[in-house]
Amino acid sequence: MKMKAAVMTGVGKPLEILAVDLAEPKANEVLVKIAATGVCHSDLNAINDETTPTPTILGHEGAGIVAAVGPNVAKVKVGDKVALSWVPYCGTCEFCVTGAVHLCESAFGPMFAGTLLDGTSRLSKDGEKVYHNSLLSTFAEYAVVPEMSCVKLPDAMPLAQASLIGCGVATGYGAAVNAAKVTPGSTVAVFGIGGVGVNAIQGARIAGASKIIACDVKPANLEIARKFGATHTINVAKENVDEALKGLTGGFGVHFAIDCSGHTGATESAWKATRKGGTVVAVGAFNPTMNLSIPAGGFHRVGKVLKGSFYGDTQPFRDFPAISQLYLDGKFLLDELVLDRISLDDINQAFDSFNDCNCINVGRSVIEFSAEPAQKALPENDALDIVS
Amino acid sequence: MKMKAAVMTGVGKPLEILAVDLAEPKANEVLVKIAATGVCHSDLNAINDETTPTPTILGHEGAGIVAAVGPNVAKVKVGDKVALSWVPYCGTCEFCVTGAVHLCESAFGPMFAGTLLDGTSRLSKDGEKVYHNSLLSTFAEYAVVPEMSCVKLPDAMPLAQASLIGCGVATGYGAAVNAAKVTPGSTVAVFGIGGVGVNAIQGARIAGASKIIACDVKPANLEIARKFGATHTINVAKENVDEALKGLTGGFGVHFAIDCSGHTGATESAWKATRKGGTVVAVGAFNPTMNLSIPAGGFHRVGKVLKGSFYGDTQPFRDFPAISQLYLDGKFLLDELVLDRISLDDINQAFDSFNDCNCINVGRSVIEFSAEPAQKALPENDALDIVS
Repeated sequence: MKMKAAVMTGVGKPLEILAVDLAEPKANEVLVKIAATGVCHSDLNAINDETTPTPTILGHEGAGIVAAVGPNVAKVKVGDKVALSWVPYCGTCEFCVTGAVHLCESAFGPMFAGTLLDGTSRLSKDGEKVYHNSLLSTFAEYAVVPEMSCVKLPDAMPLAQASLIGCGVATGYGAAVNAAKVTPGSTVAVFGIGGVGVNAIQGARIAGASKIIACDVKPANLEIARKFGATHTINVAKENVDEALKGLTGGFGVHFAIDCSGHTGATESAWKATRKGGTVVAVGAFNPTMNLSIPAGGFHRVGKVLKGSFYGDTQPFRDFPAISQLYLDGKFLLDELVLDRISLDDINQAFDSFNDCNCINVGRSVIEFSAEPAQKALPENDALDIVS
Repeated sequence: MKMKAAVMTGVGKPLEILAVDLAEPKANEVLVKIAATGVCHSDLNAINDETTPTPTILGHEGAGIVAAVGPNVAKVKVGDKVALSWVPYCGTCEFCVTGAVHLCESAFGPMFAGTLLDGTSRLSKDGEKVYHNSLLSTFAEYAVVPEMSCVKLPDAMPLAQASLIGCGVATGYGAAVNAAKVTPGSTVAVFGIGGVGVNAIQGARIAGASKIIACDVKPANLEIARKFGATHTINVAKENVDEALKGLTGGFGVHFAIDCSGHTGATESAWKATRKGGTVVAVGAFNPTMNLSIPAGGFHRVGKVLKGSFYGDTQPFRDFPAISQLYLDGKFLLDELVLDRISLDDINQAFDSFNDCNCINVGRSVIEFSAEPAQKALPENDALDIVS
């Protein structure tokens, strides 16, 4: 089938809206009609990354309706409403069988190779291969994705909101709920208030934390943090965060600290500001040339835990429906994460807005597709100007 | 009452066997007739430590029979066989009420002040105060100790073996069972095979680990490790420990690594040699001027846990009876930790043997007391030479 897609044709170039061919789903693959897809800062990073294979279709936050299934697909059927996960897993490896599906390696080879799980692509243009991205490629009207990326949601779930679940929402929520395992009545500090941090705040709120203290350098982010459930805020550029956190916690420090900043210095601050026996979770990708430096003096005495968390230790088939239901129950904010709704044609403007914005982007531009089947709208000539 | 005790009268000096006065137990205190007490390397450190208040009676590994109880004592009665813990806890603080009794601060002030929990001493000589050590002072025929240091054991438990439970045995066992939470079928590396390390090996064995890999620089220690349950050994002075551990674990690395060495470098090695999602526990006291340095690259991706553990996260009233019963059931080795049995008079020879020994001391000299009440044996004149 032919479909309209935003194609990255070269490093650093604006995406081009083109008609692309999409092959049928193979075994254990699902054809999803994309209804909505979030524009993530990671997509901008990919555009500027020399190692991104091109041409490729980016986009790793999406939701839609199952349009067809390949052989052996059991988890979804045509018509199901689904959110997509960019971390499919095998279900059978060392890590999956012990519940750590987020540590399954199956997605990484294909992710770096720009293929689906079998090492091939369903995408092409004029007979030439187009690469997948994150095994999803949601900046398109349709996507063929692994069954294990395709999570059925409640029918009532709106798809623009659903499209955001599979990336920063799950990572932040999971950092608090799955990785830190925040407990009722506890105190939680969240460092780095962006798209992940606000959802760590939400996870901590839902897990029953009594104090949730947002720590960031930007007043605007701290203001936003309160909307998502922060009970206190600390401007770490102006206050001594260690003293401030201890002051808010009877001198002990927090039970849980979640660093979503990706800065080793913030994790080191989080370590200091956590009480004896407390837990520090870091979910951001650090600069790989650096080291985390933890004071050795008294290390054993304080009994603290330092933990790295990938994707918020998310189990998509458990957590995506849970987050959706929490949203439908009015307990989890997603509407507020949809900053604006745009068409695919305007995708480059969404990237421009990342550069314009002085603050970290807590929410997202969400691309919505019209209900009309795209292949009918596309003329024979696939050039952007004519289509639009 | 008067009793015979080994008294530290000055820094760096041999202990002197003297008659010392012991007052009656106050509220929540217990008078224990010491039957056996282990000579720990920490005692030698205290002898050479300028900050140790003198005169003092050292000794923090002991077992005996309850001879009298002060008011309000509920946990033991006269005649009970008990092992002593040098980390009493309050039971009511922030940490105790959440099960982390090993993090209670109640013991530390008195420990550094050389008193019991109420800030005073029951020990004196010629009317002058003698300091307690670790709230126990077991290098004496009797000790007045906090009720919360006094753990009732099964009647069948032999007291020389019991005397060792409250220090390195509990720390090592607890590092594996309580802190790392070793699981059946898992792979475990233990770094640093000393009095703590061999008991971490035992804890891992009892928790059902399939491979227990002892890592040390000394062949003699590695040989001993096998006796306690190590299935494999790595001489880290001769082999690349990271490669060797990955070779033994299908390339993944171990599920659990327990560093009992007190060296930051060993914990850093343990971090590298642990698989994704694995747990590293460090129980040793590091050099306080140093930092633990953990590679930041991929930190979040690997989902590992780094944890400091004090006293093996021991809950004495749960763990001491459990270790005793495991010993009585033939599942936990303690006989092998009793290197020799000596009289209190020979205590300085036990300290000399620390200096003579080329290997880390895995076991202990245990001082045993005769069954005859000491106050009868002591003449009016309390000088050592006359008594002996």
